[in-house]
Amino acid sequence: MPLITLTTDFGAGGRYVAQMKGVICSLCPEATVVDLSHAMPPQGVAAAARFLEETTLWFPAGAVHLAVVDPGVGTDRAIVAVETADGTRYVAPDNGLLAWLAKTGGPLTMVRIEEAEYRRPRVSATFHGRDIMAPAAAHLAGGLAIAKLGPVADGLAPLSEQLTQGEAGVAERHENPQGGGMITGQVVEIDSFGNLITDIGAELLGGLPEGEALTIECDEHKTFGLQKTYGDQPPMTLVALVGSGDKLELAIVDDSAQIMLGVKPGAPVTLKW
Amino acid sequence: MPLITLTTDFGAGGRYVAQMKGVICSLCPEATVVDLSHAMPPQGVAAAARFLEETTLWFPAGAVHLAVVDPGVGTDRAIVAVETADGTRYVAPDNGLLAWLAKTGGPLTMVRIEEAEYRRPRVSATFHGRDIMAPAAAHLAGGLAIAKLGPVADGLAPLSEQLTQGEAGVAERHENPQGGGMITGQVVEIDSFGNLITDIGAELLGGLPEGEALTIECDEHKTFGLQKTYGDQPPMTLVALVGSGDKLELAIVDDSAQIMLGVKPGAPVTLKW
Amino acid sequence: MPLITLTTDFGAGGRYVAQMKGVICSLCPEATVVDLSHAMPPQGVAAAARFLEETTLWFPAGAVHLAVVDPGVGTDRAIVAVETADGTRYVAPDNGLLAWLAKTGGPLTMVRIEEAEYRRPRVSATFHGRDIMAPAAAHLAGGLAIAKLGPVADGLAPLSEQLTQGEAGVAERHENPQGGGMITGQVVEIDSFGNLITDIGAELLGGLPEGEALTIECDEHKTFGLQKTYGDQPPMTLVALVGSGDKLELAIVDDSAQIMLGVKPGAPVTLKW
Repeated sequence: MPLITLTTDFGAGGRYVAQMKGVICSLCPEATVVDLSHAMPPQGVAAAARFLEETTLWFPAGAVHLAVVDPGVGTDRAIVAVETADGTRYVAPDNGLLAWLAKTGGPLTMVRIEEAEYRRPRVSATFHGRDIMAPAAAHLAGGLAIAKLGPVADGLAPLSEQLTQGEAGVAERHENPQGGGMITGQVVEIDSFGNLITDIGAELLGGLPEGEALTIECDEHKTFGLQKTYGDQPPMTLVALVGSGDKLELAIVDDSAQIMLGVKPGAPVTLKW
Repeated sequence: MPLITLTTDFGAGGRYVAQMKGVICSLCPEATVVDLSHAMPPQGVAAAARFLEETTLWFPAGAVHLAVVDPGVGTDRAIVAVETADGTRYVAPDNGLLAWLAKTGGPLTMVRIEEAEYRRPRVSATFHGRDIMAPAAAHLAGGLAIAKLGPVADGLAPLSEQLTQGEAGVAERHENPQGGGMITGQVVEIDSFGNLITDIGAELLGGLPEGEALTIECDEHKTFGLQKTYGDQPPMTLVALVGSGDKLELAIVDDSAQIMLGVKPGAPVTLKW
Repeated sequence: MPLITLTTDFGAGGRYVAQMKGVICSLCPEATVVDLSHAMPPQGVAAAARFLEETTLWFPAGAVHLAVVDPGVGTDRAIVAVETADGTRYVAPDNGLLAWLAKTGGPLTMVRIEEAEYRRPRVSATFHGRDIMAPAAAHLAGGLAIAKLGPVADGLAPLSEQLTQGEAGVAERHENPQGGGMITGQVVEIDSFGNLITDIGAELLGGLPEGEALTIECDEHKTFGLQKTYGDQPPMTLVALVGSGDKLELAIVDDSAQIMLGVKPGAPVTLKW
């Protein structure tokens, strides 16, 4: 049973998502359609790229992932289909949404979706998600070879600097030759519980001291040592731990760190020991 | 694989939608259930009618579309099933939700859903979506002939004046015998990006001058000429264009016109040339 | 076609739900996955327990219901799978979420999910929904016998007092020996229409007088007699009726009682006659 996932910034419950589902069900009625998210920030290409990287890799090989966050709709940005080594397919505007695929290793087959045969007969200027991308995804799910969709693409557009500005910086670890050290990063996302997720990956956290020998600061808030899970400390305590995405996160036990601390994405996070 | 779509004003994530899905899965386990929207305005029959018209026609022939926006639940309004010429079925309260089907042309088969055999054994007074409509939709998806559900209905209830008041007016175009002219309409909906969608259809926009020779006003805001797509102008510019539903819409490039301009549904829109 | 339902407090459209769906689709691609709700109150175990009781019983026998509201993730609370007499399966943390199953009668088969074979190879400390519960649900849906998941559990954890405090009290009916009487309860939930749902079950309402002989009060608001449905009174009227869940509810006809009256869960409700 072919699988198509949907990720958009259209908002759940609006007509845009419904129309895309209609197109998909019409062209590939046997497909299972799974909503990943329609809550991407409007035109938030960088956030949606991170979301796709963190979610689509959990799906089985061969799935078709359709992503529409498309501020340039109707301009000359390309629309692409990409197939990874395991047969998984992605359909999206070529605006940086899929740039992270290069990091996953393995050869990518990339085409620009240009064949009129696999579009809606009439293509609107403002909704290529419905008129070009949904049909392409449905045809791929139905068994169409990716090469049929159009000419080979040279590569994928990167995330532009403008898009990544204020987004995830590059967390860094500095060892002090006299002993001790420092890791700097920032809050890049706040989850639905109000937990503050940083860009500091677990791979930066090896060999750190425990307990009070490790200070973790975010804005003017401070905690000591890394916990294993939220429940290791009493309610209302600020804790730092490695979350399920292998990133350092800061949380208030049984409450929302976002609301309690007023921290926003971009807030600096520092570990010192 | 039979297809059932759901459109309600119940809100996503509440118990009402979940119970309807349970009834459907119990009676027609092989059906694919697709959420169209649970975000219709509470008791917003006219808005939901427009939504159904703009979305369900994108689905394949033979689908079953279940719509529950039902301020008259428990009163003597009928519940109907309607089959169109291509075998698509609709199940809804007969309160105007389906009045637009008459416009689609082709013969409609209409019945009042009254057969006890195809209801829940016990029907509550306040939730016919679960107890009457969901079972009917599931039986139809499972292959039941529409005529089995009850007696033939004479016709569909219209949208009452009360319901359409303040809703889409009738956009009009006036040609000036001395040259020039005017189109008047209004904002009827705001999409998830904050774009202002009007009731001015593309068919009214033929032969208009381009650029500064065409003034488009909405409340006290003004722009000139029609664009082809959002990206034709710099960010933060007010643009007017024909949207994906073939209606004139006003948008702020890369931002929300709703938030930036404070415009609400019902705001007058005027084109002059 | 196996059926898996999902109920979480993760919020729709976030990465957590998407990752769980990815795990399920990978392990049991033939399953139909139905979103019940991702809008449970954060860590709201008691509310989610009530939601599960009111929705999952509407699904067909044999379904797998996966529920993740898990404030104790990573602590030593167990994760359980429960099978009811009709072959329906539940997977959840053993924190009271499933305590209501004892009330449904019939034997329950309960195991603690501990077999490493049926978990993700690497289990995070903070997201057992993805790493333990979703795999278990997928394996069950794929046909795995519940006993394979781990050792038999002695019983299910109750809802702790702390969790139920402020939640549904026990509605009571008092008959006055001189005639007349009183029922006391409270508002326990507000639905998506703003209707105030109480803990006063229909079984307490037998033999009450009609019309003005029955006074119903909530906070300082008052109405008389029970209606059969919302439409029995003019718009903007406060009405009391037995809702679709067989509980007394208070509603403003065609509007939101929550907004119009400012009533919150916990507000006392009294019937006098």
